[in-house]
Amino acid sequence: MNIIVQKFGGTSVGTIERIKNVAKRAIETKQNGFDTVIVVSAMGDTTDRLISLAKAVNLTPPKRELDMLLSTGEQTTIALLAMAIDGMGYKAVSLTGYQCGIITNDYYSKAKIDSIDPKRIKDELEEDKIVIIAGFQGASLSHDITTLGRGGSDTTAVALAVALEAKKCEIYTDVLGIYTSDPRLVSTAKLLKTISYDELLEMAMLGAGVMHPRSVELARKNNMPLIVRSAFDYNNVGTEIIEVKEMEKAQVRGVTLDEDIVRISVPNVPDKPGIAYKLFSSLINLNVHIDMILQNLNHDGFNDISFTVPIDDFDTILPTIEAFVEEVGASPILVKKDVAKLSIVGTGITSDVKIASGLFGKIYELGINIEMISTSEIKISCIISQSQSKQALDEVHKYFELNGL
Amino acid sequence: MNIIVQKFGGTSVGTIERIKNVAKRAIETKQNGFDTVIVVSAMGDTTDRLISLAKAVNLTPPKRELDMLLSTGEQTTIALLAMAIDGMGYKAVSLTGYQCGIITNDYYSKAKIDSIDPKRIKDELEEDKIVIIAGFQGASLSHDITTLGRGGSDTTAVALAVALEAKKCEIYTDVLGIYTSDPRLVSTAKLLKTISYDELLEMAMLGAGVMHPRSVELARKNNMPLIVRSAFDYNNVGTEIIEVKEMEKAQVRGVTLDEDIVRISVPNVPDKPGIAYKLFSSLINLNVHIDMILQNLNHDGFNDISFTVPIDDFDTILPTIEAFVEEVGASPILVKKDVAKLSIVGTGITSDVKIASGLFGKIYELGINIEMISTSEIKISCIISQSQSKQALDEVHKYFELNGL
Repeated sequence: MNIIVQKFGGTSVGTIERIKNVAKRAIETKQNGFDTVIVVSAMGDTTDRLISLAKAVNLTPPKRELDMLLSTGEQTTIALLAMAIDGMGYKAVSLTGYQCGIITNDYYSKAKIDSIDPKRIKDELEEDKIVIIAGFQGASLSHDITTLGRGGSDTTAVALAVALEAKKCEIYTDVLGIYTSDPRLVSTAKLLKTISYDELLEMAMLGAGVMHPRSVELARKNNMPLIVRSAFDYNNVGTEIIEVKEMEKAQVRGVTLDEDIVRISVPNVPDKPGIAYKLFSSLINLNVHIDMILQNLNHDGFNDISFTVPIDDFDTILPTIEAFVEEVGASPILVKKDVAKLSIVGTGITSDVKIASGLFGKIYELGINIEMISTSEIKISCIISQSQSKQALDEVHKYFELNGL
Repeated sequence: MNIIVQKFGGTSVGTIERIKNVAKRAIETKQNGFDTVIVVSAMGDTTDRLISLAKAVNLTPPKRELDMLLSTGEQTTIALLAMAIDGMGYKAVSLTGYQCGIITNDYYSKAKIDSIDPKRIKDELEEDKIVIIAGFQGASLSHDITTLGRGGSDTTAVALAVALEAKKCEIYTDVLGIYTSDPRLVSTAKLLKTISYDELLEMAMLGAGVMHPRSVELARKNNMPLIVRSAFDYNNVGTEIIEVKEMEKAQVRGVTLDEDIVRISVPNVPDKPGIAYKLFSSLINLNVHIDMILQNLNHDGFNDISFTVPIDDFDTILPTIEAFVEEVGASPILVKKDVAKLSIVGTGITSDVKIASGLFGKIYELGINIEMISTSEIKISCIISQSQSKQALDEVHKYFELNGL
């Protein structure tokens, strides 16, 4: 089969007119000879609206029930899109996460895909139908509805593309592709024609927003050709995500800013072997992405442990941290919400000392204090004050000559 | 187990406050020692809103996709109700039609229940949870979502009560119970303390609106104790539906009016054996309720065939009728929409000639022409002009002394 998976996000299906537009695109793709699978999100702000409804009923709704509720959002879109395609004279069928064979664990609201049985989708494709799939959702082995958490629809699209051995996976979004920085923050940011999985992965991890890291990782692991492009301008071919090539020289490819984090410090943790492990393993068990861990041995056998977490996870982890503090006899935690993570991304940049020192030098020159630093193969991140973060983003983008791409 | 099934319709769950109210009622029921199963409809006008969305995309949406869309309405309610109960400190779990084991045929938008596997519900009840079920929906053997058509949530409630061997099934609605006539049309209509399944069935068939005939029939067949009562006034015990008792004398129990019908006449149908059967069997295959069939042998071996159908089914059956007309060489059909069906209901009334003649006499006295008549064991129906139907309803209600109950 000659399968393509195309994913359209919430903005791209936000109105009836836009859904009709996606229907036209799906038909074009079908006409171009592809067995066409479309993955869609909930319309516009539907998910937020449903969450408000839930909170009006129960401030801490059970996650299983929240997934039951939220999954109606995508289910609405798939039905409408299938109707739109039918109205244009083509055959279409909509499938929920359960119906299209996506089996997840039962970690509600952040479920992970365990397996996909693509039989139903293939059967429908063989009947010449355009197959419309509800993104963001699956079902546990006990048939309970689960959602995949943030960026879940991207994950659905890539995972289906892999399971279906698709030729490629196209992510249609409200921007033209992947930029050197967030174009809403940096007006001079430029569209990248290509980017490596690793670079995109780091940028996604750092809150670049266009794609969720899970889906990029999945595409990389399975070598699935991935294209990020505009849902509103089909003439623009967008950004192709490619295997990393040998780089002639290390080059900064993007600058990202993530303001949705919080810095937590636990002062005076007794310096015993395994005690930090104890804290972080209990947090990791909550399925929270802990980042930027800093441990300072500072006085008389006590450590200060600092780390950052996504702000949305703060309420979830607080009881666990406080239990830890009480158990080990540490001091009350310090929480700082006025922080942001500024990062540069590019294959090989960590091994080029001039790039790191250039970044730190530039931030120093702006009179901004760097509170924490972390690096990986292809990124360098700094925690700085949020009040100065946008200025820093702009200046760093300019400093690494990304405006001129 | 000591199971009760309680069903709450769309008005009863129309707002967040009302959902909380239903949550309280469910908890009270649980506290009274019942294993509690709650069946709910979509909130308020959700279904109508979804249908409008569908029509905006495709004026004749495929029924499979319409069911996919509409089923989100109940799914939203069950999630919110389960959250509300959780917020009040009780355990609850919501289940879709598929999850609670309701298997239907694949006659989308009008599916019939083939079987119910109550295992999941019983398992959840045994874990001391209040179980919340999405009414109106099921799934076909191929896991496609189906809806049960009009009155579907009542059918879900009764069918589940039967499958679960429940002690009783309570239908909570926006009126106090079953009245002698529609209280919105007849201000003097009185609440009935009891009514027989058969009488209620006839009244439901005749458009009395409170309960759908399918569910009443199902309750009668399985001898399931049924109670119709108010969702807004729990002190009122409503109407109990009971096995018919020996009646001392035939008595009119209710008067109903159904204005949502259309009268169709096919003139000059050749009088050959089986020709009427041919027409009606093809209509019945469309799953349309044909009522009030009248066949007049009038001239030279040709018949006029007249019948009434629900107005909503008119578009569905029109092509079939026209094909019939062409095939047998009948004259073009005549359609009359300005008709209404006025009926009186009561066990034994057909065998009491004074009641029938009293009805016809009263209508005659009002100067209203009776276009068609049909009778059953316990009802007498007349087709009259819609413009005079409300007046007739009022007068007939008074004539049979129902005001004084």
